[in-house]
Amino acid sequence: MTRFALTLEFDGGPFVGLQRQALGDSIQQSVEEAVFAITGETVSMHAAGRTDAGVHALAMRAHLDIAKPITPFRLMEALNAVLRPAPIAVLACETKPHDWHARFTCTGRRYLYRIANRRAPLTIDRGKAWLVSRPLDVYAMRVGAQALIGLHDFTTFRSVHCQSKSPVKALERLDVRREGDTVLIEAAARSFLHHQVRSMVGCLVLVGLGRWAPERIAEALAARDRTALGLNAPPDGLYFVSASYPDEA
Amino acid sequence: MTRFALTLEFDGGPFVGLQRQALGDSIQQSVEEAVFAITGETVSMHAAGRTDAGVHALAMRAHLDIAKPITPFRLMEALNAVLRPAPIAVLACETKPHDWHARFTCTGRRYLYRIANRRAPLTIDRGKAWLVSRPLDVYAMRVGAQALIGLHDFTTFRSVHCQSKSPVKALERLDVRREGDTVLIEAAARSFLHHQVRSMVGCLVLVGLGRWAPERIAEALAARDRTALGLNAPPDGLYFVSASYPDEA
Repeated sequence: MTRFALTLEFDGGPFVGLQRQALGDSIQQSVEEAVFAITGETVSMHAAGRTDAGVHALAMRAHLDIAKPITPFRLMEALNAVLRPAPIAVLACETKPHDWHARFTCTGRRYLYRIANRRAPLTIDRGKAWLVSRPLDVYAMRVGAQALIGLHDFTTFRSVHCQSKSPVKALERLDVRREGDTVLIEAAARSFLHHQVRSMVGCLVLVGLGRWAPERIAEALAARDRTALGLNAPPDGLYFVSASYPDEA
Repeated sequence: MTRFALTLEFDGGPFVGLQRQALGDSIQQSVEEAVFAITGETVSMHAAGRTDAGVHALAMRAHLDIAKPITPFRLMEALNAVLRPAPIAVLACETKPHDWHARFTCTGRRYLYRIANRRAPLTIDRGKAWLVSRPLDVYAMRVGAQALIGLHDFTTFRSVHCQSKSPVKALERLDVRREGDTVLIEAAARSFLHHQVRSMVGCLVLVGLGRWAPERIAEALAARDRTALGLNAPPDGLYFVSASYPDEA
């Protein structure tokens, strides 16, 4: 058996999410079925993050084990050929030791959230950003974001479906910046709770709209209560950017 | 009658092109029908450029005349509400004097061409860039581009369907740059021939791939013969960026 690490890019729009589910197409099922088509082997793919329906990835990392002898380059080319009708692409493929695990070995994850801050409906970026029509005060959002950085109990910003053992996470970075009519939010941490980025972005948008004072973010965090959440941002604007591993530092 | 100037953004993917045609949806027809839905008036829209099927616009300019009293803001909002299912948005709307013409008053047009220079198929950018799998030598492309800048007879780079009176055009700018695995080509001129940008990009890609020496661009230009054209780039990567007008300088 050889362990292969994949770097995946995908448009989350047509999928039920990264993880295999009873109904609907998932990224996991698509890749596993492509491997079966190539090798005849039934494999399990493990990914660095479990993105929801509609969430995109620029460089999701995943691994799977294959018995048949095949080079990483051939595997990548074959996967891309089989996957082609679906908006999933393998950007890179390499072999890894058997103790390398896309999820458990991962020491850092980065997400990007794109907000289109304009009145006009989206055209070219439809499904690829969250349209917020009223002007956002990026400075206020940046002030509000400071309260979330560091080690906190993120219960307020956690989905009821979250499977993480602990709600305590160390948020390393939460940057807010404007580029024209796009507002970009970058988040980095060792790991995130389910819906954490979308929940943080939703509350920051309330701050940007002036509906929440920036201090309200700290209050929502301190509440440790999901009902203190202001707003969960839609999946369309969320991108899994990258995962980091000790052997690649 | 009031003359309204529109700034349009659209995803060209689902359309037969900007201009109304016998069969298929066009940008022109969509906007004209939306105006009819709002005002009951049959109008003719005139645009700064006539983009082909699959070509996108970040800020196409167009004008149309409406008899019914309506403010530019209300017209923009109503158009966006009616157009919403289609990937066409009105980014701005203003009144103009009756001698202002989106096409004939226009003194400058800018296009952007996006090339995804990577092996993996496109996912998030599907239909929004041209996938060129082999590595492009951007420096060679930049050298080749120099031959096209200035006043030339662009017959080689002109579609057989081009309706322009003269094949002589002054190309002001043709910049090639790389940003990661994306190669961007920006073109600026008072006006362009039909297929000119795509034809220039196609030949520059041949240079970037090493299949043409950079000097071959000058030879193709001097031939003034469509059969000297190496390659017409696909529409997916082409964006109409902006149009300039003397009253807005």
